[in-house]
Amino acid sequence: MKAKITFVGSGNVATSLAHALDKAGHTIHQVISRNADNAKILASKFGAYYGDQPSEMYKDADFVILCVSDEAYYSVLEELPDGLRAIVCHTAGPVAMNVLEGYSGDYGVFYPLQSFRKEEVKDVMSVPFFVEGSSKQVKEKLHALADTISNKVSEVSSPEREKYHLSAVFANNFTNAMYAVADNYLADNGLDFNNLLPIIKETADRLKNGKPSQWQTGPAKRGDKAVIQKHLDMLDDDMLKAIYAQMSKFIEYNAQ
Amino acid sequence: MKAKITFVGSGNVATSLAHALDKAGHTIHQVISRNADNAKILASKFGAYYGDQPSEMYKDADFVILCVSDEAYYSVLEELPDGLRAIVCHTAGPVAMNVLEGYSGDYGVFYPLQSFRKEEVKDVMSVPFFVEGSSKQVKEKLHALADTISNKVSEVSSPEREKYHLSAVFANNFTNAMYAVADNYLADNGLDFNNLLPIIKETADRLKNGKPSQWQTGPAKRGDKAVIQKHLDMLDDDMLKAIYAQMSKFIEYNAQ
Repeated sequence: MKAKITFVGSGNVATSLAHALDKAGHTIHQVISRNADNAKILASKFGAYYGDQPSEMYKDADFVILCVSDEAYYSVLEELPDGLRAIVCHTAGPVAMNVLEGYSGDYGVFYPLQSFRKEEVKDVMSVPFFVEGSSKQVKEKLHALADTISNKVSEVSSPEREKYHLSAVFANNFTNAMYAVADNYLADNGLDFNNLLPIIKETADRLKNGKPSQWQTGPAKRGDKAVIQKHLDMLDDDMLKAIYAQMSKFIEYNAQ
Repeated sequence: MKAKITFVGSGNVATSLAHALDKAGHTIHQVISRNADNAKILASKFGAYYGDQPSEMYKDADFVILCVSDEAYYSVLEELPDGLRAIVCHTAGPVAMNVLEGYSGDYGVFYPLQSFRKEEVKDVMSVPFFVEGSSKQVKEKLHALADTISNKVSEVSSPEREKYHLSAVFANNFTNAMYAVADNYLADNGLDFNNLLPIIKETADRLKNGKPSQWQTGPAKRGDKAVIQKHLDMLDDDMLKAIYAQMSKFIEYNAQ
């Protein structure tokens, strides 16, 4: 199955998906972005048309993939031309499929559970894709499209996808914030965050071999009140003290 | 430099270091552990002597490496035989070097900043080793020993090592707890934590290319109050709500 695909957006998600779909033999038909320069740059990689207004969209694509920020969805949807034959789908974790209802005959969700950077386009074959469709046929078409670029495609409802998104906030956003705490604390003390990279990698890699609760270590897990108190005393920042105390309480509670 | 090395302890750290030092051509001379079976198992891999009491330690080792839990240090130290010619060193992040003072003529620290599992012994060449010594000569000898198994050896004082340990609690222990939150939440909802593994790996890998604060994403970073409130409403557990609110506050504060 070879499809003709239009992207709305030219950021990290659009860039990564366009490269993957192009490589899989699909035609990147048009790239539309409010930033005409970015639209042109991305479109030029695939010999695609470009434009800076959703109203300029050609009507002959098979799929229109919306890769815009959550806040931009409504203004883009309002400007879609009438008479699209495409399946219009969005790529957002926390956005329900039915925001697309009424704007397109066929619509759905084409959500990759990964964090992308346009500066470093990576293979998406092992990225989980969650698809959802306004009808069984639409869902099947989105599933088939995703199957051409990933071997981890599944059908996931909007409420389930929202739960995945919430869990990714913990496992990805909050985890990164913990890295930032460590980085800032070490930098403030003239020490080198790079020394933590091997243990960070090990902690992430280990999840392949068991549940995270099984690998929990550290003073809170051991119930080592003396080290916990020493660490709280070492932290000057009240917000960091609060995070340390809260996380230690959580780990101690779950260790019981 | 080929040394004769005695281990006290037979757990994750002792097992990993003994394999690395044996592979580098040193002699694993004796393994002492309160659990005689474990001592025997580990010693037998290297044709080493074993024992279950520190007082049974042979006096002709060049290094005695203590790999026991923080609480066990004092009882082990009290039982060390007199007249050791070895440099006695510990391997603990949060323990100051001077706990060893008075128990051995020469003493120091031989601390690998990594989390080990004896079930899966890995190469330690890229593991940061922090050494410290009771004299310049002792420090040099521990540095030379570490250099035979790692290319990331540095001299780090006890206060600095304690700061690294505190930062590793954030970057390793608390990060793992975040993974556990995600795992538990998904399991409670019949969803699959394995779908998060690619984004977890990406978040950890990305640190090679820049500071964690540079990679922060998510609703709190965007100041997306609607998604934050929706997530808080989706969480039933008060402790998880508190963690979510605390971390979002921290990210929003640092995004300013």
